[in-house]
Amino acid sequence: MADWHTTVTPPALARLLATARLPEPATARRPAYRTLAGQIRLLVTEGRLPVGARLPAERELATALELSRTTVATAYETLRGDGYLHSRRGAGSWTALPEGAPPPGDALHPVPPDEQGRTLDLGVAAPPAPQPWFGAAAARAVEQLPYYASGHGHYPTGVPVLREAVARRYTERGLATTPDQILITTGAMGGLHLVQRVLVGRGDRVAVEAPSYAHTLQALRLSGARLVPVPFAYRPGPDGGPAPRWDAEEWQRVLRGAAPRLAYVIPDFHNPTGALIGEEQRRELLAAARAAGSIVLVDETTAELGWGVPESVPLPRPVAALDRSAQVVTVGSAGKLLWGGLRIGWVRAAPALVRRLAGERVYSDVGTPVLDQLIAAELLGEPLPAVRAHQLARLRATAHAFAAALPEQLPDWSFPMPTGGLALWVSTAGLSGAALAQAGEHGGVRVASGNRFGSDGAFEHHIRIPLTVPAATVPAAVGRLAAVAARATAGGRLGPTDEAQPLAV
Amino acid sequence: MADWHTTVTPPALARLLATARLPEPATARRPAYRTLAGQIRLLVTEGRLPVGARLPAERELATALELSRTTVATAYETLRGDGYLHSRRGAGSWTALPEGAPPPGDALHPVPPDEQGRTLDLGVAAPPAPQPWFGAAAARAVEQLPYYASGHGHYPTGVPVLREAVARRYTERGLATTPDQILITTGAMGGLHLVQRVLVGRGDRVAVEAPSYAHTLQALRLSGARLVPVPFAYRPGPDGGPAPRWDAEEWQRVLRGAAPRLAYVIPDFHNPTGALIGEEQRRELLAAARAAGSIVLVDETTAELGWGVPESVPLPRPVAALDRSAQVVTVGSAGKLLWGGLRIGWVRAAPALVRRLAGERVYSDVGTPVLDQLIAAELLGEPLPAVRAHQLARLRATAHAFAAALPEQLPDWSFPMPTGGLALWVSTAGLSGAALAQAGEHGGVRVASGNRFGSDGAFEHHIRIPLTVPAATVPAAVGRLAAVAARATAGGRLGPTDEAQPLAV
Repeated sequence: MADWHTTVTPPALARLLATARLPEPATARRPAYRTLAGQIRLLVTEGRLPVGARLPAERELATALELSRTTVATAYETLRGDGYLHSRRGAGSWTALPEGAPPPGDALHPVPPDEQGRTLDLGVAAPPAPQPWFGAAAARAVEQLPYYASGHGHYPTGVPVLREAVARRYTERGLATTPDQILITTGAMGGLHLVQRVLVGRGDRVAVEAPSYAHTLQALRLSGARLVPVPFAYRPGPDGGPAPRWDAEEWQRVLRGAAPRLAYVIPDFHNPTGALIGEEQRRELLAAARAAGSIVLVDETTAELGWGVPESVPLPRPVAALDRSAQVVTVGSAGKLLWGGLRIGWVRAAPALVRRLAGERVYSDVGTPVLDQLIAAELLGEPLPAVRAHQLARLRATAHAFAAALPEQLPDWSFPMPTGGLALWVSTAGLSGAALAQAGEHGGVRVASGNRFGSDGAFEHHIRIPLTVPAATVPAAVGRLAAVAARATAGGRLGPTDEAQPLAV
Repeated sequence: MADWHTTVTPPALARLLATARLPEPATARRPAYRTLAGQIRLLVTEGRLPVGARLPAERELATALELSRTTVATAYETLRGDGYLHSRRGAGSWTALPEGAPPPGDALHPVPPDEQGRTLDLGVAAPPAPQPWFGAAAARAVEQLPYYASGHGHYPTGVPVLREAVARRYTERGLATTPDQILITTGAMGGLHLVQRVLVGRGDRVAVEAPSYAHTLQALRLSGARLVPVPFAYRPGPDGGPAPRWDAEEWQRVLRGAAPRLAYVIPDFHNPTGALIGEEQRRELLAAARAAGSIVLVDETTAELGWGVPESVPLPRPVAALDRSAQVVTVGSAGKLLWGGLRIGWVRAAPALVRRLAGERVYSDVGTPVLDQLIAAELLGEPLPAVRAHQLARLRATAHAFAAALPEQLPDWSFPMPTGGLALWVSTAGLSGAALAQAGEHGGVRVASGNRFGSDGAFEHHIRIPLTVPAATVPAAVGRLAAVAARATAGGRLGPTDEAQPLAV
């Protein structure tokens, strides 16, 4: 086999292992080889160690970790037996995933529909498509298709009808926008990837909220950016409980001190905390970013999801509406309001930057499929108010169901109750989120551990619970979580050698 | 405005300018400022100088180029007047595209359907969708959509029904394939981008055919790979004319000498030459690549386009079918046989690499839209033979129309007549392809200059003519080409200050 592997050096693996925290064993008797094997397995399933990474030779790793060679050899043997390592004499050992395992990247990867019967997926925060509007829009889009199908179908900036619909929606939300300020991308992630490729260089500093959206953080890390996390501050909210907001002083300090290339923020029903940032804090951030020469990259993926905000209360205006110096680039998505399977997102920026991004994408996805753009344009038109009301009612019902079930079954856990967004950001009362996630894989519930949303292992004692499962599923999901938490607390062995205990749904 | 510009240093711009060849003026009277402005405009329209690149200050550039400051100032002023440069006092000057200009990247960018009336687009080698099959498949896909729309719609490896259809098609073509060897990507370019991100590091050597597909070459360059071009050899073909094939000795020499990380090849109806490589040469390449430890990346975008090969003649088997050491990664596309607007491509690789790529794409496009995958799966099923016959007949008719019209109107130009693929690779008898492309922008015909398909300015005297326009359009297209060639030969002024002469279609 030709070498398509990344080689992990002994010091690099030692550093990674130091961040792979397993749950404490109930007794002190867990042998060292089992700890090492468990840590490597955790790194692979979380996607922090790529599949196909060539591990150090046993002797080298033993030296680096100050373990006996037998310990490393036995750990490798355990991993081979479980399907997490392949070895060939003379060629080395490289990480793998056992047959049937989900792709790496923790529970943020989706379970295919076929498998949802046996595992409750609390990993992916993405709702189903809103019916019947979605089916009707697809049928109308197919009617329009012949016009487009007579040409080559390539639209680097997007199909005009969707660029117009997105611009119109911005204008409705209080931010006058023309179609030439809009680039249609393959999902919001496609937009973030493109912006990052063009605007962020290796070694550039990027200020990010802590916590923030896990995949963006990882994408920035992979591109060689240096993350500067800025924690949230918690102040009493309208319901008396703590509500997250930006820590203005900390943002000032970071922007002034680090002068980052980019500040990446999610000001509307933040993922994962649900924070909604007011206009005054938005203005303060813009002023500080302007003084520092930083671009503000606003992720509006969750901006339309204010399921707990009364109709009569006006929402803060988009950050770009407060921007007087063209320093804001906005990324938006149809994935949460319409459907993730459309893979429709967009970038709103100055027309010259839109053109530059369109030129750049020729070397990645070339363009976004036409039919999905036509469907999104249909749904952003006349059906939008009904679609939005439908999706928000669904999220609201699930949020209230979790808010009722969690304190009952897991009274030590806590979370700020958001007024919108896709998730609850749950503090697990000292229980390791990574351990919960790993135990959940075998306990019939997938959940995303908190440290995926932070840098350097922060938020170890958090999990993110998405609001995109049906409300009726919530009691069963919380029941499984409670059972998994009980096992993780008791410190039982984790991993595929455990017998999976099917739980009643 | 926050700084989202690339800064081009004076030496870097001087190097770029050295490769920007303008047509010779008819007289020696072209002033230096006009040459400089024309060269910068050429670099911007070809995408070699990004839009939004900050140019050196006038004084610095004057020093670097050994020109007077007045010359540089007048060139900048000319570019500003034409919309190719924006300046602000104290802030500098940066490249731009005038209102209404296509995105950068030469004629490889498509003209939107609306504009096709006035410009004949010979830039994009992408056919329209095959009707009526396409419309019928779209309608059937919409019927299947409700099942998928009830889930979150994310499929990092692809929708199972399409992975199965692609695997089945490989098996039909003589390469036994299982669905877990297939990753569905957003177009073939999405697959190439992903493979390159995972397998090619900055500074890695990549051996490429010379010429090769322009966008892959540029994508590799942008990723920091070092290209090692391997020219084709020409031998008498079945029709007596010269036919391109791999230069076996040169490939041996490069693989042995440079031990590149990757060898990127297009063995089936190569883009742009149309070369079809026989099984013997395929085996030789595999053996040499294996000895060198190189991965062979096979681009099969054009593999199904053998419009000049009789049904009775068996095609060479896919390269991966001859591979005994898992060193081949194959990228394929539905874009040419079905429709580019679907943005459906795939990677065929070992299951472990498929998983690794799926994990990686979470940081770019997450997945490919569901509906387009369902349409592709429909079309790769029962309708495929009819669809394929329809598309091949169309390409064949256009190829024969060009083969008749070109020798009549442009007798000095020459091209090997291919037996398949998307394009003719035309030698322009010493006329600059870049100059032709630029003149064509104002002469009602867009065409891709040859140097986009080579490295370091090679193939300056070639253009690529795609076979995807209707055959009925060919006489008009060749007429415009001949008129543009006559003007370029005469060395008239080029560019937007020229009065565009509308030509009769």
